[in-house]
Amino acid sequence: MMLGPAIELGLPLTVLATDPAESAAQGAAHVRIGRHDDEEAVRALAAEVDVLTFDHEHVPPRILEGIERDGLAAVRPGPAALVHAQDKVLMRERLGALGHPCPRWWRAASAADVDAALAELGTAGRAVVKTPRGGYDGHGVRVVSAGSDVADWFEDHEELLVEELVPFTRELSAQVARRPGGEMLAFPVVRSTQKDGVCFEVLAPAPDLGPADQERIQQLALRIAEDLGVTGMLAVELFETAGGEVLVNELAMRPHNTGHWSMDGAVTGQFEQHLRAVADLPLGASAPRAPHAVMVNLLGGTREDLAAGAREAMERDPGLKVHLYGKSVRPGRKVGHVTLAGSDPADLLARAHRAERLIIDAVHEEQNA
Amino acid sequence: MMLGPAIELGLPLTVLATDPAESAAQGAAHVRIGRHDDEEAVRALAAEVDVLTFDHEHVPPRILEGIERDGLAAVRPGPAALVHAQDKVLMRERLGALGHPCPRWWRAASAADVDAALAELGTAGRAVVKTPRGGYDGHGVRVVSAGSDVADWFEDHEELLVEELVPFTRELSAQVARRPGGEMLAFPVVRSTQKDGVCFEVLAPAPDLGPADQERIQQLALRIAEDLGVTGMLAVELFETAGGEVLVNELAMRPHNTGHWSMDGAVTGQFEQHLRAVADLPLGASAPRAPHAVMVNLLGGTREDLAAGAREAMERDPGLKVHLYGKSVRPGRKVGHVTLAGSDPADLLARAHRAERLIIDAVHEEQNA
Repeated sequence: MMLGPAIELGLPLTVLATDPAESAAQGAAHVRIGRHDDEEAVRALAAEVDVLTFDHEHVPPRILEGIERDGLAAVRPGPAALVHAQDKVLMRERLGALGHPCPRWWRAASAADVDAALAELGTAGRAVVKTPRGGYDGHGVRVVSAGSDVADWFEDHEELLVEELVPFTRELSAQVARRPGGEMLAFPVVRSTQKDGVCFEVLAPAPDLGPADQERIQQLALRIAEDLGVTGMLAVELFETAGGEVLVNELAMRPHNTGHWSMDGAVTGQFEQHLRAVADLPLGASAPRAPHAVMVNLLGGTREDLAAGAREAMERDPGLKVHLYGKSVRPGRKVGHVTLAGSDPADLLARAHRAERLIIDAVHEEQNA
Repeated sequence: MMLGPAIELGLPLTVLATDPAESAAQGAAHVRIGRHDDEEAVRALAAEVDVLTFDHEHVPPRILEGIERDGLAAVRPGPAALVHAQDKVLMRERLGALGHPCPRWWRAASAADVDAALAELGTAGRAVVKTPRGGYDGHGVRVVSAGSDVADWFEDHEELLVEELVPFTRELSAQVARRPGGEMLAFPVVRSTQKDGVCFEVLAPAPDLGPADQERIQQLALRIAEDLGVTGMLAVELFETAGGEVLVNELAMRPHNTGHWSMDGAVTGQFEQHLRAVADLPLGASAPRAPHAVMVNLLGGTREDLAAGAREAMERDPGLKVHLYGKSVRPGRKVGHVTLAGSDPADLLARAHRAERLIIDAVHEEQNA
C-alpha cells in the first residue's frame, strides 16, 4: 500500500519479497526476490537503495545493525529503535524504565516462573503469556492459568513474557510519524476492536474521548517515538481501563492496520506519511477529511472470489472504498479492508460491516458499538 | 496515475510504453515496450489483457477497430466513440448533428477555404484553425487572420478545422464516467484556466455557478457521453460566454488534466473512476471531500531538481498534496501538479500557486481570479 503514494511522491521503491506471487511484489515496478531473514538478500537490496524500511518487524536486528555499521543504506526505523517492536521483553523493560504506563509484567524462563508470576498476580488466577519475538495477530499470545499451559513454548524460547490480564474496557491506537531529525506529528487516536486477536474494526477518532484525553494519549505516543528514536510511523496499541487510564499493549514501527482508515480518511494517509518520514520529507497534515472514518478488515471467509462480492458491495454503496490485497483467501487471513468517511459513525460502521459481509461472505456477530 | 488505484482495486495493469524511461513505465509492475501506433505492439498487448484503455488519444482507430473486430480485448472507450476525441472535424460534425452547442465551424481544404470562412465570420477578422488530429496542449491550434497563416499545415493535412473565436468569459470542464452498460455519473463542473493553451489551474466546483447551471452543464456532458457511447471518463471542455451559454470546445475520453483535483478532493478520484468504468465495476461517488478543491499544474521552469522545491513547498504547507510525474524538466512541460482542498477558495489558490512557484522556480503572473 506504499506503492501508490511512492509513485505520486516520485520516490522509486524496490520491494524485497520471498516470492514473486506476494502481493507487494505483484504491484511493484522493482522487485528483488529474497528472504527478509537472509543476510545476503537484505544487504544486496540495501546496497542499491538510499533508505531501507519495513512493512513488518521480522528482519533480524543483526542484519540491520550490519547494514547500518557498513553504511550500506539508512535504516529507518534504525535497529536500535526497531528492536522495541521486535522484542516484547526489551519493549517492556525500556518503557518501564522510561516511566510509560504498562501492564504488570514478568520474565519467565520456565513454567515455574510463570506459576510464580501467577501467584504474585494473586486472585485473578490468569495471565497473558507472550513469546518475545515473532508473534503477530494473536500468534504467540496465550491466556494461561498455569505455567504448564505454555510448557511447549519453552522448547523454542529461552524466555517468555508474562503480563497481567488487563481488565480493559476497550482498545485504542495512537499513531505518530517521526522524521530522522525529530519532527513529529500525531494522527487522531482511534478505537480498535479485535476479534480472535486480530484487528477487525477501527473508528476514527475514538468515540467518547474528549480533546484533553485525545491530546494526553497523543502526547504519550509522541514521547515514546522520541524516547525510542523511531523513524517512520509508530503505532502504540493501548488498553483503556474503566478509570480512563491507558496502558501500552504493543508497539509497531511501520504503517499499521489501525491506521488504514487514514488512506481515504485523512489528508495524508499513513502509507504516504511513512514514506515521507523515512525519506526525510516534511510530514503531511494528519487531519481527518471528514468528522468520522471507519475501517473494517476483510478476513478470509468461505468465498474464494472476492471480486464478485466487492462488485456487489461497491454497487450498493458508492461511497465505499475497497482495498484488496491480491492474496489468496484462507480463513481468518487479512485479504483486504474497506473504509468509509462521513458524519454519522453508526451509519458508517453499519455500511462497512454490510460491505464486509458481502465481500467475504462470512457469518459473524456484528461488533457495531 | 492509474497505477495506485489499480493496486488498491486489485486490478492487474500492463502499461504499453515506447521507452522504459517513460514515467508510467517506471512505476508499473508490468510493462510492454512498444509504440502506441505500432499495430503489432498494440495487438500483442491486447492479446494478453481483458480490457484495453488509454491515457492519450493517439492510438490509430484502424488498430483499435481490428482488435475489436478480432475480439482480442474489450476496447474501452471503443474506437467508434474514441474517434470523436481523435478527430476534431468528426467531433464537430457529430455534436452538431446531435444538436449540442458548438462554436461556428468550417472545414478548410485550402488557404482559400480559410479565407472564405473568415469572410463569412464577418467583422471579427480572426478565427481559430486547428489540425483535426494529433493536437494537444495548444499544439495544432492557431489564431489566424488569413488563410496564409496556416499554409504550411496544408502540407501535412488534407483538411483543417476553422472555428469562430468565441468571446468566452471563462473555460469550464465537465467530467462524467460511463460504464459499458450505460451507468453514468457526473463530477462537479470545474473552472479551468489556461496559459499558452495549457491547463494551468482548476477550481472545483466552478465559482459563481448555481446548482441549476451545474446541473444543466452536467446533463450536457452526460448526454454527450450517452450519445457517443463513451466508456470510461469523458471530459467536455467548454467555453462560457457572457450570457452564461456554454459551447463545447474539446472532448477527451480518458482521465483529464481538469480532473486531477479529484485524486485528493473527491471520494473517488478520476483515475480510480476511469478504471472502475472500463473494468465494468460500479462507479464510486464523485462527491467532493471538501467544499472547494484546487489543482495547479507544475509546468517545467528553470529548475531541474523538482524534489528540492517540493520539499520546501511541503515544509511550508502540510495540507499540500504534491504529485510528481518523474519526467525530465523542459520549459512548459507538465511535470507534476499540486492539489489542496478546504473551505476558502482564495486561500487554496494562493497556497497552490505559492507551492507551484517554490517547486518549479518559475516567474509568471499569478492567475488567482
